[in-house]
Amino acid sequence: MITGKSYIGFAQQSNGKTTYKTVNPKLNLENEWLFTEATAAEIDTAVALAWSAFKEYRNTNELDRAKFLNAIAEEIEALGDELVQVYCAESGLPEGRANGERNRTVFQLRSFAEMLQSDDWKQIAIDTALPERTPAPKPDLRRSVLPLGPVAVFGSSNFPLAYSTAGGDTASALAVGCPVVVKSHPMHSGTGELIAGAIVRAAQKTGMPEGVFSNLNSEGIEVGQQLVKHPKIKAVGFTGSIRGGRALLDLAAERLEPIPVFAEMGSINPVVITQKALEENGSKWAQTYAGSITLGTGQFCTNPGLILGIKSPELTAFSEELASKIVTIDPMVMLHPNIKSAYGILKSEVTNQSGVEVLSAPLEVEANFADQAVATVDGATFLSNPKLHTEVFGPFSIVVQCDDEAQLVEIIENLEGQLTGTILAENSDIPNLNTIVDEMRQRVGRLIFNGVPTGVEVCPSMNHGGPYPSSTDPRFTAVGTHSVRRWVRLISYQSMPEALLPNELKNG
Amino acid sequence: MITGKSYIGFAQQSNGKTTYKTVNPKLNLENEWLFTEATAAEIDTAVALAWSAFKEYRNTNELDRAKFLNAIAEEIEALGDELVQVYCAESGLPEGRANGERNRTVFQLRSFAEMLQSDDWKQIAIDTALPERTPAPKPDLRRSVLPLGPVAVFGSSNFPLAYSTAGGDTASALAVGCPVVVKSHPMHSGTGELIAGAIVRAAQKTGMPEGVFSNLNSEGIEVGQQLVKHPKIKAVGFTGSIRGGRALLDLAAERLEPIPVFAEMGSINPVVITQKALEENGSKWAQTYAGSITLGTGQFCTNPGLILGIKSPELTAFSEELASKIVTIDPMVMLHPNIKSAYGILKSEVTNQSGVEVLSAPLEVEANFADQAVATVDGATFLSNPKLHTEVFGPFSIVVQCDDEAQLVEIIENLEGQLTGTILAENSDIPNLNTIVDEMRQRVGRLIFNGVPTGVEVCPSMNHGGPYPSSTDPRFTAVGTHSVRRWVRLISYQSMPEALLPNELKNG
Repeated sequence: MITGKSYIGFAQQSNGKTTYKTVNPKLNLENEWLFTEATAAEIDTAVALAWSAFKEYRNTNELDRAKFLNAIAEEIEALGDELVQVYCAESGLPEGRANGERNRTVFQLRSFAEMLQSDDWKQIAIDTALPERTPAPKPDLRRSVLPLGPVAVFGSSNFPLAYSTAGGDTASALAVGCPVVVKSHPMHSGTGELIAGAIVRAAQKTGMPEGVFSNLNSEGIEVGQQLVKHPKIKAVGFTGSIRGGRALLDLAAERLEPIPVFAEMGSINPVVITQKALEENGSKWAQTYAGSITLGTGQFCTNPGLILGIKSPELTAFSEELASKIVTIDPMVMLHPNIKSAYGILKSEVTNQSGVEVLSAPLEVEANFADQAVATVDGATFLSNPKLHTEVFGPFSIVVQCDDEAQLVEIIENLEGQLTGTILAENSDIPNLNTIVDEMRQRVGRLIFNGVPTGVEVCPSMNHGGPYPSSTDPRFTAVGTHSVRRWVRLISYQSMPEALLPNELKNG
Repeated sequence: MITGKSYIGFAQQSNGKTTYKTVNPKLNLENEWLFTEATAAEIDTAVALAWSAFKEYRNTNELDRAKFLNAIAEEIEALGDELVQVYCAESGLPEGRANGERNRTVFQLRSFAEMLQSDDWKQIAIDTALPERTPAPKPDLRRSVLPLGPVAVFGSSNFPLAYSTAGGDTASALAVGCPVVVKSHPMHSGTGELIAGAIVRAAQKTGMPEGVFSNLNSEGIEVGQQLVKHPKIKAVGFTGSIRGGRALLDLAAERLEPIPVFAEMGSINPVVITQKALEENGSKWAQTYAGSITLGTGQFCTNPGLILGIKSPELTAFSEELASKIVTIDPMVMLHPNIKSAYGILKSEVTNQSGVEVLSAPLEVEANFADQAVATVDGATFLSNPKLHTEVFGPFSIVVQCDDEAQLVEIIENLEGQLTGTILAENSDIPNLNTIVDEMRQRVGRLIFNGVPTGVEVCPSMNHGGPYPSSTDPRFTAVGTHSVRRWVRLISYQSMPEALLPNELKNG
């Protein structure tokens, strides 16, 4: 049952006066549940509880934290159909996606639990003493990591489960001993409350301290601002827009004690298609990319919004085929009326720029449904107009017709940082791809060969992040077990007696 | 021969009009060499050269970069006596220290060269494809790292060799493929020019691209500001004061593209001494700490400026012995008249606070020489007056007499972040030290048992950094081979053909 209250530690509270509702975008109607915005006092209490929990939680052993993470996964599975119904009502996404995303969420939680079975994530280094060294003896030195402290998590709109309340940021922070305070996403606060309840029950069942997790309802920006400015919050995880992520980054930078912000933000995910790929497989790629561009109504952070090729009849044919195939797909609903309206505005801004031609036939769509589209522009125009690099969040992509490879490389070199880049080529292209690979990898966090960028594996080698503005710090990833590095810091012990060393640094 | 010119790539230039000289603090006289401040155009040229060098340098192989680092070490050794003489004339530090620091500098360069013999630093992870996986096949994913780009390095005043022009920041950045633009330290620009010349000769001898290194002379703050704001500078390394480091951090945060800043800044390096240690070894520790506090005229970033004990006749005896021993040491010259004057001002500010008692006898010293001192205060006063937590850069320490262990722990908990913390104890104390160890390690980057914080080993397990304000990001270290992580970012390759993968990710 959804109460509309925040979780302040283990307790549900709603002392505030400001309320809001979520929207069912498919019905274009408000949902029934009434959420109460967390008050300043509730935020303070949540952070104070997180801080006091931190003193205990940072010293819990890995097996206990693994049990906690596994228990969260079980509690989420136990939410059954109610979770799926609320998820669909608040996002417009289909049931199949709800189930898939739930599977991903519990898989992530269990992956971090499994990671805790070994000490590989602790950046351990041991240099034993050299008492005979001259001119001075070398002391025994051993390095490991410590959790940073309470982490504020801001979930994304487009993954209400996997990158929200119990998503990758929360799971990775809890795994390494950081309490989490979630600022609930206002578009899916009901889904958030159900998940928060699952986390709280799991914490209680596995004996975790109160305050290890809180969930703050909020529609506006004030709750998030207060949270990021709080002296006892020691790091921030965010998934969303460039504007939102940058605002939090700036706020954290202005603190008396600046803190790390990892924000995974916008990206247009460039795709390069070679002349040979156009000749041999143009039609196949047109079909595949019509699907990738419209996947999840184009609301993936890795959505391919930019396709680069060299002018040729085959590129023209590919563009036209992509445009004609994309409109054969049934238009789908977007996550929220605001997201639909932003899509319309940004798409118009881009397609109204001089030199841009829309290739796809116009679609008549219902309120909140997206009219997918493909446009084209020449390379020189794209290079000279940064407006054309804007992420249009939704099922839209622009094909850039470059004069030659030099211009294509220049475009890549001048792109803002991206989560992904993709190269579509034939095997016979490989010997000639070194420059494109080298320039492309400079601008992206993940480079894909002959595939689609949509779809982000959860595995140790995944990098989901990239140069600014795709993320705020390309040295870290938001997905995969490596993502825990965002929340731990280094500590060295010099000449410490065995009994005072953490277990992972003891002899033998 | 010192020309007073900047190195803009391989060429020495001085197109500017603003000049300055360094000071011999021992003689209290200006040195003969006239340095010319780099112009805005020279800065632009240096960064443009760094950017064009980056395109080649990022793809050099590890063995070639190792040769370059080793050649720098050889060229520095070949500077012979001139380097020692200029170093001493510009810093007031003795010849023995100059030789020791040169050894450390070349050892660091060679350590990074050795690191490049293996791929351990590349954060490699490989997940091979699972084509049979359902519902979707798993692609082949492989992760490694890429250099961030040109790094701006700001050296420290107190280590003119090991943490300046060719110090840890420069060596670690060059090791991983980042060109370096050094903003020369105005207190030792002659030393800096000699070292810069060694780096340039090494680059030429080993065939590195022009722009892989530049050295910009500057007395004011404008050159550094322009450098950090330059769009083609992608990271910043700094060693120095909290004020200086924070200013660069703020500047980098305001950029259109924010960039990582690793600043190693101020620290008072708390030391806890137990009652048993006072009883059994109080006199030994007083002697040892009189030496540690005055080492290098107290100008070490790990200088122990705060000693915490619980009120007792033995703590009083220790404090008095420390105070009497410290004044038997010959006063030594500080690095620069400005540093001496800041020492005097800060020491007075702290010792004039209510409740502070100076225990050491006043010393008569010459201009630029430091009058080392020890003071004491009770725990409640220290807790309530943050002014007493200020770093007094120089040979000064304050002994805090706590009422009991609870107050001592409260003081630790409320300390700003520190590079180091030290516990002086007897073996029989060990079972009772868990709380102190746990709270202390939360506030420090390195925890030392029965030793002194001065002295920073260069080895893989070293952490030289810590919670703010001791550094700007406690997830990284400034010393040891792990410090390269500051300058690299993650990249994943998905389904990449073998021929397009970097060597470290190829099969077998």
